Amino acid sequence: MRILVIGAGGLVGKAAAAALGMRHEVIEASRSGAVAVDLADPETIPPMFESVGAVDAIVSCTGTVPFKPLAELSLGDFRSGFEDKVLGQVALVQLGVDYVRDGGSFTLTSGILAREPILTGAAASLTNGALESFVMAAAAELPRGLRINAVSPTVLEDATGYHDYFPGFSRVSSESLGQAYVKSVEGVQTGQTYAVD
Amino acid sequence: MRILVIGAGGLVGKAAAAALGMRHEVIEASRSGAVAVDLADPETIPPMFESVGAVDAIVSCTGTVPFKPLAELSLGDFRSGFEDKVLGQVALVQLGVDYVRDGGSFTLTSGILAREPILTGAAASLTNGALESFVMAAAAELPRGLRINAVSPTVLEDATGYHDYFPGFSRVSSESLGQAYVKSVEGVQTGQTYAVD
Repeated sequence: MRILVIGAGGLVGKAAAAALGMRHEVIEASRSGAVAVDLADPETIPPMFESVGAVDAIVSCTGTVPFKPLAELSLGDFRSGFEDKVLGQVALVQLGVDYVRDGGSFTLTSGILAREPILTGAAASLTNGALESFVMAAAAELPRGLRINAVSPTVLEDATGYHDYFPGFSRVSSESLGQAYVKSVEGVQTGQTYAVD
Repeated sequence: MRILVIGAGGLVGKAAAAALGMRHEVIEASRSGAVAVDLADPETIPPMFESVGAVDAIVSCTGTVPFKPLAELSLGDFRSGFEDKVLGQVALVQLGVDYVRDGGSFTLTSGILAREPILTGAAASLTNGALESFVMAAAAELPRGLRINAVSPTVLEDATGYHDYFPGFSRVSSESLGQAYVKSVEGVQTGQTYAVD
């Protein structure tokens, strides 16, 4: 398959690209890469697709959300997380439909905070919950046999800077996380959230 | 208890107000009521709280989301649903903390589309999923023993105009739906989503 991985510069994106790259052609896109895109700015999406052309799968591993105590989260903070992580990935799907071959797939990235809370994580929980319900609903309406799933990981072993925010949470290896993207791309399900924890 | 019910002009709000009003003082707020508020315009929230004063519980039954086929949902449509149903209720919580007495509660309203899809419902699913994960996360950080839950109903028996969009879905009576708000307000749990279907 020919697979576009967006956010390939981050830890999650690297895990996805490494796992998918074992058997497939992976095209890596990121904010500063040769194939450039910033999902927080949806106007950068069409030029990316024009340069990449048709693919069999689109994998998105992007999204920045503010982490602050609930009392300090402004409406602007919630809006910022929504525009970046939710609307960016929704725009990728809406614009990407024309570039994914029949029977292909989208795989978005949400996160464990959709189903478990941490302090300072209310905006992140909100965005992840939005993505997982979106994926479930969009699956029912995508044309031409296209599928869509979400991968929803706990904190990565390699993301040591985040470990203190996830006390007692299981940690996942990059290899295990990468397999969830393989499952979504090569598997048969749609509308699913693959929890990785 | 003294309970503020927002969106009291709608079918869901009427169900909540009727059930809660059997044993409590209910103050009804709505876009066109004597106590006026429009959660889609967060600037209308502080004047409402100033006129109402302290309460033991805040119940929100509001939120408008565009329903369109997935291919026709623009980013503006997703943004509109988010600003109205999600950010409006988040703003209510953030601004309402100072007006709810110690040990009091918030009850927001999401909906069955968080967990089951219908055609034209992708933006609604996204907003409902966002609210349910927000409630789970916010519960962990609210001060002074405040609680927060969501009520997530299927389509109402009385909402006959919506029945064709929910083929085969169970329908709930106003009385049953109202009891979910009673459970949230008078109960002991927090961070929960009470599915009513």
